[in-house]
Amino acid sequence: MTVSEAPPPAAREDPWQMAREQLRRIGRIIGIGDNMLAVLSECKKVVSVSVPVRMDDGSVRAFEGFRITHNVARGPSKGGLRYHAEVSRRQLKALAMQMTWKCALMNLPFGGAKGGIVCDPKALSPGELERMTRRYTSEIVNLIGPEVDIPAPDIGTNPQVMAWIFDTYSMNKGYSVLGVVTGKPVHLGGSAGRAEAPARGAAYCIREALRKRGTGVEGTTVAIQGFGTVGRNVALFLHEEGAKVIALSDTGGGIFNADGIDVGAAVAHKGEAGALAGLAGTEAITNAELLALECDVLAPCAHEQVITRANAVDV
Amino acid sequence: MTVSEAPPPAAREDPWQMAREQLRRIGRIIGIGDNMLAVLSECKKVVSVSVPVRMDDGSVRAFEGFRITHNVARGPSKGGLRYHAEVSRRQLKALAMQMTWKCALMNLPFGGAKGGIVCDPKALSPGELERMTRRYTSEIVNLIGPEVDIPAPDIGTNPQVMAWIFDTYSMNKGYSVLGVVTGKPVHLGGSAGRAEAPARGAAYCIREALRKRGTGVEGTTVAIQGFGTVGRNVALFLHEEGAKVIALSDTGGGIFNADGIDVGAAVAHKGEAGALAGLAGTEAITNAELLALECDVLAPCAHEQVITRANAVDV
Amino acid sequence: MTVSEAPPPAAREDPWQMAREQLRRIGRIIGIGDNMLAVLSECKKVVSVSVPVRMDDGSVRAFEGFRITHNVARGPSKGGLRYHAEVSRRQLKALAMQMTWKCALMNLPFGGAKGGIVCDPKALSPGELERMTRRYTSEIVNLIGPEVDIPAPDIGTNPQVMAWIFDTYSMNKGYSVLGVVTGKPVHLGGSAGRAEAPARGAAYCIREALRKRGTGVEGTTVAIQGFGTVGRNVALFLHEEGAKVIALSDTGGGIFNADGIDVGAAVAHKGEAGALAGLAGTEAITNAELLALECDVLAPCAHEQVITRANAVDV
Amino acid sequence: MTVSEAPPPAAREDPWQMAREQLRRIGRIIGIGDNMLAVLSECKKVVSVSVPVRMDDGSVRAFEGFRITHNVARGPSKGGLRYHAEVSRRQLKALAMQMTWKCALMNLPFGGAKGGIVCDPKALSPGELERMTRRYTSEIVNLIGPEVDIPAPDIGTNPQVMAWIFDTYSMNKGYSVLGVVTGKPVHLGGSAGRAEAPARGAAYCIREALRKRGTGVEGTTVAIQGFGTVGRNVALFLHEEGAKVIALSDTGGGIFNADGIDVGAAVAHKGEAGALAGLAGTEAITNAELLALECDVLAPCAHEQVITRANAVDV
Amino acid sequence: MTVSEAPPPAAREDPWQMAREQLRRIGRIIGIGDNMLAVLSECKKVVSVSVPVRMDDGSVRAFEGFRITHNVARGPSKGGLRYHAEVSRRQLKALAMQMTWKCALMNLPFGGAKGGIVCDPKALSPGELERMTRRYTSEIVNLIGPEVDIPAPDIGTNPQVMAWIFDTYSMNKGYSVLGVVTGKPVHLGGSAGRAEAPARGAAYCIREALRKRGTGVEGTTVAIQGFGTVGRNVALFLHEEGAKVIALSDTGGGIFNADGIDVGAAVAHKGEAGALAGLAGTEAITNAELLALECDVLAPCAHEQVITRANAVDV
Amino acid sequence: MTVSEAPPPAAREDPWQMAREQLRRIGRIIGIGDNMLAVLSECKKVVSVSVPVRMDDGSVRAFEGFRITHNVARGPSKGGLRYHAEVSRRQLKALAMQMTWKCALMNLPFGGAKGGIVCDPKALSPGELERMTRRYTSEIVNLIGPEVDIPAPDIGTNPQVMAWIFDTYSMNKGYSVLGVVTGKPVHLGGSAGRAEAPARGAAYCIREALRKRGTGVEGTTVAIQGFGTVGRNVALFLHEEGAKVIALSDTGGGIFNADGIDVGAAVAHKGEAGALAGLAGTEAITNAELLALECDVLAPCAHEQVITRANAVDV
Repeated sequence: MTVSEAPPPAAREDPWQMAREQLRRIGRIIGIGDNMLAVLSECKKVVSVSVPVRMDDGSVRAFEGFRITHNVARGPSKGGLRYHAEVSRRQLKALAMQMTWKCALMNLPFGGAKGGIVCDPKALSPGELERMTRRYTSEIVNLIGPEVDIPAPDIGTNPQVMAWIFDTYSMNKGYSVLGVVTGKPVHLGGSAGRAEAPARGAAYCIREALRKRGTGVEGTTVAIQGFGTVGRNVALFLHEEGAKVIALSDTGGGIFNADGIDVGAAVAHKGEAGALAGLAGTEAITNAELLALECDVLAPCAHEQVITRANAVDV
Repeated sequence: MTVSEAPPPAAREDPWQMAREQLRRIGRIIGIGDNMLAVLSECKKVVSVSVPVRMDDGSVRAFEGFRITHNVARGPSKGGLRYHAEVSRRQLKALAMQMTWKCALMNLPFGGAKGGIVCDPKALSPGELERMTRRYTSEIVNLIGPEVDIPAPDIGTNPQVMAWIFDTYSMNKGYSVLGVVTGKPVHLGGSAGRAEAPARGAAYCIREALRKRGTGVEGTTVAIQGFGTVGRNVALFLHEEGAKVIALSDTGGGIFNADGIDVGAAVAHKGEAGALAGLAGTEAITNAELLALECDVLAPCAHEQVITRANAVDV
Repeated sequence: MTVSEAPPPAAREDPWQMAREQLRRIGRIIGIGDNMLAVLSECKKVVSVSVPVRMDDGSVRAFEGFRITHNVARGPSKGGLRYHAEVSRRQLKALAMQMTWKCALMNLPFGGAKGGIVCDPKALSPGELERMTRRYTSEIVNLIGPEVDIPAPDIGTNPQVMAWIFDTYSMNKGYSVLGVVTGKPVHLGGSAGRAEAPARGAAYCIREALRKRGTGVEGTTVAIQGFGTVGRNVALFLHEEGAKVIALSDTGGGIFNADGIDVGAAVAHKGEAGALAGLAGTEAITNAELLALECDVLAPCAHEQVITRANAVDV
Repeated sequence: MTVSEAPPPAAREDPWQMAREQLRRIGRIIGIGDNMLAVLSECKKVVSVSVPVRMDDGSVRAFEGFRITHNVARGPSKGGLRYHAEVSRRQLKALAMQMTWKCALMNLPFGGAKGGIVCDPKALSPGELERMTRRYTSEIVNLIGPEVDIPAPDIGTNPQVMAWIFDTYSMNKGYSVLGVVTGKPVHLGGSAGRAEAPARGAAYCIREALRKRGTGVEGTTVAIQGFGTVGRNVALFLHEEGAKVIALSDTGGGIFNADGIDVGAAVAHKGEAGALAGLAGTEAITNAELLALECDVLAPCAHEQVITRANAVDV
Repeated sequence: MTVSEAPPPAAREDPWQMAREQLRRIGRIIGIGDNMLAVLSECKKVVSVSVPVRMDDGSVRAFEGFRITHNVARGPSKGGLRYHAEVSRRQLKALAMQMTWKCALMNLPFGGAKGGIVCDPKALSPGELERMTRRYTSEIVNLIGPEVDIPAPDIGTNPQVMAWIFDTYSMNKGYSVLGVVTGKPVHLGGSAGRAEAPARGAAYCIREALRKRGTGVEGTTVAIQGFGTVGRNVALFLHEEGAKVIALSDTGGGIFNADGIDVGAAVAHKGEAGALAGLAGTEAITNAELLALECDVLAPCAHEQVITRANAVDV
Repeated sequence: MTVSEAPPPAAREDPWQMAREQLRRIGRIIGIGDNMLAVLSECKKVVSVSVPVRMDDGSVRAFEGFRITHNVARGPSKGGLRYHAEVSRRQLKALAMQMTWKCALMNLPFGGAKGGIVCDPKALSPGELERMTRRYTSEIVNLIGPEVDIPAPDIGTNPQVMAWIFDTYSMNKGYSVLGVVTGKPVHLGGSAGRAEAPARGAAYCIREALRKRGTGVEGTTVAIQGFGTVGRNVALFLHEEGAKVIALSDTGGGIFNADGIDVGAAVAHKGEAGALAGLAGTEAITNAELLALECDVLAPCAHEQVITRANAVDV
């Protein structure tokens, strides 16, 4: 049997099927028994709640919220909370399973979970966002906690959302429970440096990989897709260490300079113009062209939405 | 707009869509506001859990279990627990919503819920059934309770299953919690007469309806589809009150006698022969023919499985 | 020692001092020992909480809320929740103590409590009232409950306020706790007849007192101060039983007819005109004059506010 | 197999062995299976706690307290609390098992338990008794409760002891829990008539037994050993119904009158003289002679202590 | 706007008004918004409880106890427990608010609280003190805890009082909860060095202030009002580091020596004579004179009582 | 009085009497007061539970399980769980008391406890062992916990047993509670090096004792009774540090070589042959002879069973 054989077409579309298939393959390689696989192939608990919210116009809308636990054998589960119009049960189940893997790989005493609400957070007023978050928290208040399951920011959520969860949960318990979420605002006990942490981790991995390959960061050519919190900071960190960043992109397309882009200037330009396109000294490329560039390091730092829009543009 | 217009074809197939459509129509008639409808059109909480069970052959199988709460505004939710191969989330959501309606119509201080496990209970050994029930109970132990949500027997479950739930729940709490389930064995605090209660209720309704129509039970012609706990007892109760039961059926088909069937003899025959077919003094009919008989009262007492098999035979 | 001696002037002003003085006198008469008196002369627990509320104009106001328990030796404490600008700690302590007396006199298995928020409920929008009530409930959520302390409507609160408390408390506990308040809306489990209950009780007492005196209700002359839920219904109940209601009053003053007022007409007039004054066939009197009328029964059914305004008018 | 065969000598001495032997025999008669017998032959939980008490002389003594649960399958366990110098684990285990039987026989939804402290309550001051009771309650506070296990008065304890338990338990929980003990003082929610209840039950049984035998109470000759709460009241009740009470006894010996004793006079004499001996119109007999009297009904109403002393006198 | 303007006269008398005024001024300087100020200007929860205590003479006295929480946004609240005859609600509210400030300034993850009982602890026997402390703890047992609110010793309380609280709380919970109080006896988990900690902190601050001013401790002239745990140890610490302590005082008045007092000798003299007055080589001064001495460092280490008595002497 | 006088004969047999006697003597030496001794001479709580287990043959056996807490004044209690046929209440009480001593001597913030089940674990199948452990855990689930009482492996139990307890406890609580037991498997959060810890501690003590005596480990002659986890590792550790291990033994008897045994070879031989006897280059000795050998260090590392069998062989 060939382990590297491609998954069946359906699995490519369905994130949950894809994750289970990955588990099956890896399990075969590292020798997980059938009984253990039967347990690990399912999520321990999948909860969806109706979240009725009074909208600013006085009407009531019922949003669908999820919180999904894959496994807690090694400790309380950890996992982000996503606010996005395309949140789905199967997607969150896959992400929860992957959180179990991540924590186990890093040998952290945590299991895996994930949550989300089907909504377009950009279309909600701050008041609606707060009421939706607080109501959702009330509905799952007995499912989370420092020893049970600990949400964190994810796509569409941020430290402010975590502060609302923290406050709603604490009011329910009758005292401040700082450990119920991570990613809180720093003045409420959040960790300094958390925002840049994913980029810093990626930059460390790249540096170590280059070291292992016998070269260093200095002079390495780098192309980075996506210019959000992750992509921008990866670019800055590698630039600081002497890498030659030859291409960057956002949802509007990419920019290219074979001699290296001044990343600080790109950040400033994006801040003023709202897009990377048009940065002096760079030429425009599509996201698809970026992915095909000749380079030492290609960093795909765009979340799904970017990829989707990029594809839409390219096809 | 015509309230009695038929639902769109899709809704006929999907029990959840059908129940929401019913709610929408009734809501319009009795004047439920849009905001309240938005809340009542969703289930408050939908939980599915993975139920890993060690089978008698030593392997582990993970069953999927559900517990769904539609509404608890008027008190703890009530609702059956179904063990069946075709249990689905959407079906249970519809049944949970209907439990809210039933309790509210009877002005009982309860809300609506429903649960189930996707399995074929007849294919499981008693030990497997017990281990599956106990594990499922452990996984939902904080979702049920006398003041929260109270399971009851339904298709595929019985007093023994309730006793396992009661025992598992009580061991978790550290003392006997008799109110956590209804439908317990009588010697453990179950209610006498519970088994015949659905049939008795149906018989009472029929009697009252006939009284209202100006006739009585005496001499009324009755056809009953299904001969399980409900159908059999409805037949017995109406027979006792003087009705002429002209047709009965089970999954193997129906029996007919225009002068009335001796229901006691039918019960005895079914007990011995395992089927109604062949009862002396009756002629065989199909389930479809039974439903088309000329009669005063037609009592459809078959649960879905019967209906399905009956259809399969008829087509 | 003369038991009927007047309390010192100060006690007349201070409700708490007055209640303690009453307790001291009664205790002496019925023989309560000094040690028991030392316990009963204090409230077991006095809690005040800050209730920050976001007002409709976006500003935050911190209201002061109270919940006071006098005694729970005979069961959970019962007592109303008052929203009024002149709510004070000492007033509520006195009312809580009196609730203990009331429950003990009726031999009900309850202790005494009282609560309130310093606010003018008529100056708050429905949204502000709801947010204030819900936040207050959150702050005292561990002090109340069906086995601990059970609020009820009082001056400035009503079934809607009780429904908010019920909902906030239930969301905190995770299930519907119907017993946390009395005076709920009837469709949420409130008791039918509760609104008229105080008046009915007063009317029963009057009837029994008259019976004991050897006369009946029929033809008895009655003057009633106050035309709120209590005064109006006392008037209706006694009128129905044949009493001659010669005088009524509200905060705008009183009306008088020596031959008896048609109470149904008075209710209708008050509904249309907003005041009793001007009812055909009656002459105007002041509240002070009403209290000095020659009559068989004088029913003081005005709460403090009425008395205060009445005094203000009279002096 | 002979059911009436005598137990082996050892079992006669050891109450626990005796109770298990009774269970084994009865189980055989009524057909309890071996597995069920294996469970019922043991007490579910046996707890002993050290109860350090500061004595009035300033020293600390550690008493040994017990609380034993035999079975809770049918509901919370019920059982007395005994203060006696000869309390032992095996004795209390037997009494707990018998409480299970008693509740099951009466079809009450309770299981069986028993507790006790090894002490001589008559040698303790009221303060020592209170401190011992409160400390014992604190040590077992999580083992008792209205839904778990409910103590009651027994030898050496009384309503005052129950009130201390109620108060200590309630202070621990933060609110009054009236259901944690039975046998409370009536003004704290105890049941009226409880003191005479055992005697009333015995008198009812005697009456029914006589009725079944075809005779009535009228004129029946009765001998009663023991003149505590039970014996005295059985005598009074039967006397009232026309029985001829020919013999009574207390720890000092018995009295006899073949024509019947005036029980009211016996109660009065005992109250004044402190003993039955010497009641006018009766002759003295020993406890042993009482037990051997010719009579229709012999009621052994002396608890162990009386029997012991009686034996000591007689031998 | 002049920040340094004097508070209005009333605020000088009333500690709560004074603290709110301080908050208002500081808030204006550091830019706290009006809404946040509205919240911070009130105490979150103010609880007073009646603490009935059986006195050694058999009588019952009901003491008034307080526990006040100002803010818990940053973690569980911390704050001392004061036993003093002049404890008042407004004083404790001010001290609770100041605890919030202190913890926030040091960036500790704690909020602010304070408690107290109105009593003269020196007039109570050890037994009365223990019973009062234990009963008070029972009454507030659900308001404190390692994650909620953590008392500590303050004026009139000490490690023994903390041990009683720890024991009462732990017995309530059923296991030892070491984190419920700080300031426990060292052998029960208290921190070594805690008694001298306030003085050590003050001495460190003085040292750092002198360093910043460009001089050192060596040779600095110091006057210290108060000779309790704080004043005495500040004197010892500064003396050890070479300061010239020229004046000390206790409630009986002060002592002065321009060439420096031998602090060790002063401690010894106080221990023998019970007062500082009369130490060889010093001259007597009043507390008022001490406060007006020419010196580099003036350390006001007397709590209110000393100040009050000192004033009484001086005026 | 001579402290070293021998205990009375009875105490030598009864471990509980022996431990109390040791406490009495040591208490006298270090000056523990009578009242404190009265408390420390008893176990705080002694719990025995009936543990019904379905055996593989379908029958039910009720095992007797214990959990005993001696003292928790310094923190949650710690103590092993023993599965052995001769487990008894008095033995476990002694061991629990000794755990209090051990923790206090090491100044660990823990109290002392011990538990056990009367059974022969070697005669139980893995399934029976698991069911017995899980049922026992359910019965004591409210007595243990990270802040209450923390079991650990002892004779007859191992990391697998701890994993079952951890899982049963966690399922009861609804989330993974890693701190409920120590001695878990390393991949579930157990401590690395735990298995060898007792031997390592013993070896450290021996090394320090030799250092204090002025000699070192190098060349020291050592005899070790017992070759389980402790004896074997002590031998290995001392051997590595240069000691001359002249004698070893297991339940089958001992081996001796005056020039030192190759401990690695002994481990290998035991692994292959199942016993130490017959190791090349050693001569056989009895356990009794081993104890009487001339040597610098005698390490008695056999648990009771070994000693018993050894005695049986020797006498």
